[in-house]
Amino acid sequence: MRDEGQSWLKDGERFDDLQRNGLRIIQRADGFCFGMDAVLLSGFAKVKPGERVMDLCSGNGIIPLLLSAKTQGKHFTGLELLAENVDMAQRSVAANGLNERIAMEQGDVRDATERFGRASFDVVTCNPPYMKGGHGLQNADDVRTIARHEVKLSLSEMITQTAGLLRPKGRAYFVHRPFRLTELVVLMHEAGLEMKRLRMVYPFADREPNMVLVEGVRDAKPYLTVDPPLVVYEKPDVYTREIIEVYGY
Amino acid sequence: MRDEGQSWLKDGERFDDLQRNGLRIIQRADGFCFGMDAVLLSGFAKVKPGERVMDLCSGNGIIPLLLSAKTQGKHFTGLELLAENVDMAQRSVAANGLNERIAMEQGDVRDATERFGRASFDVVTCNPPYMKGGHGLQNADDVRTIARHEVKLSLSEMITQTAGLLRPKGRAYFVHRPFRLTELVVLMHEAGLEMKRLRMVYPFADREPNMVLVEGVRDAKPYLTVDPPLVVYEKPDVYTREIIEVYGY
Repeated sequence: MRDEGQSWLKDGERFDDLQRNGLRIIQRADGFCFGMDAVLLSGFAKVKPGERVMDLCSGNGIIPLLLSAKTQGKHFTGLELLAENVDMAQRSVAANGLNERIAMEQGDVRDATERFGRASFDVVTCNPPYMKGGHGLQNADDVRTIARHEVKLSLSEMITQTAGLLRPKGRAYFVHRPFRLTELVVLMHEAGLEMKRLRMVYPFADREPNMVLVEGVRDAKPYLTVDPPLVVYEKPDVYTREIIEVYGY
Repeated sequence: MRDEGQSWLKDGERFDDLQRNGLRIIQRADGFCFGMDAVLLSGFAKVKPGERVMDLCSGNGIIPLLLSAKTQGKHFTGLELLAENVDMAQRSVAANGLNERIAMEQGDVRDATERFGRASFDVVTCNPPYMKGGHGLQNADDVRTIARHEVKLSLSEMITQTAGLLRPKGRAYFVHRPFRLTELVVLMHEAGLEMKRLRMVYPFADREPNMVLVEGVRDAKPYLTVDPPLVVYEKPDVYTREIIEVYGY
């Protein structure tokens, strides 16, 4: 297994164990590695048997990989701008024997609806760059800068493409920072994607939340369900039972 | 004290102790009595020394009464549609010796900006009816129905009036049900009142929230601060320390 693994890896890359169905993912220590955000999003998203899923800003493919293990979705497409991420993700998919269920595609999210077709997915997921704008940023072409800042894709553009890709009543799942929640609500509403469920992620039970998980439904009426708080740490370095059991972190 | 109190009361009314600065409030057992919502809103709202405050949908005046005790605001106006509520509230204000700081006014919130003037308040508070619409409701003129359902005032109308009454950078504080949070965000944004702070109120630490407290600022840029969760009960019938100490419930 170890020897077989070596052949999939390029210089500076390693396999990380996803602790789920024996899945492994290729990452670079000097690149943008997936975080808890992606894992929580894959636990929050609901994918029904037979559904087709698009993951925007897919990076090294962490979300399609986890959703393929956690759900009975029929097919997962990951769309990612950076060729080096797509290359890593494609080798992760192949190494896990998932070529028939997951397709990693290189391309600009801003062209997604035109390329894949209007109303062509049941579910869209996205763990987008969190930081607003990207003007005047140093290293604006750096892999990690693109993953964190809206250098190549604004929140508004991402939401417009999501709404375009979803069939009526199709569902979108996003993870974002709480400070941008109001923009998220307004932009989703304007795009015809109503926020229907929300979960705040609090690092500790008595602290401000540092992530928010949201579900949007295309062409739905306003009515928000707010889930119980998701608390990450019981105490420093000790995860809560829910993070371990439900989210499999 | 007891004897003096009797003279303020009409048939079917009683004085309730507000446990704050010796304040008392007149309520009717068969009317709409104030709830934890109003008390939490009065603890969440920030009123600076010298500021002028308007409380919309003021009912029996609970919010102006509590804010007069908790803050150094200069003056508080309570606007309430139902004459019988205004009458009770005015007697509560007089009984507490607060006629110089609190004015309870009878009138329709929909006329508030025209009546009190544009940009005439530093702070607006409101604990509005929570339930959507009011068409086809039985007892649509009942005091409790009007307090709970949007029979006489929609959320949109309330927010438009709030934005009209506030000076630029003036602050609004609302309490509402979480299921209407997305509407609240969108309507506030459209009225030029950006939601800048939010606190979810969870009855128990592992349950869905049943209230949300929000702060809006007129003509501000989007950037939301989400406060730590406010948990009401430690265990059944036992309030958490924060509810007792900070909110004085």
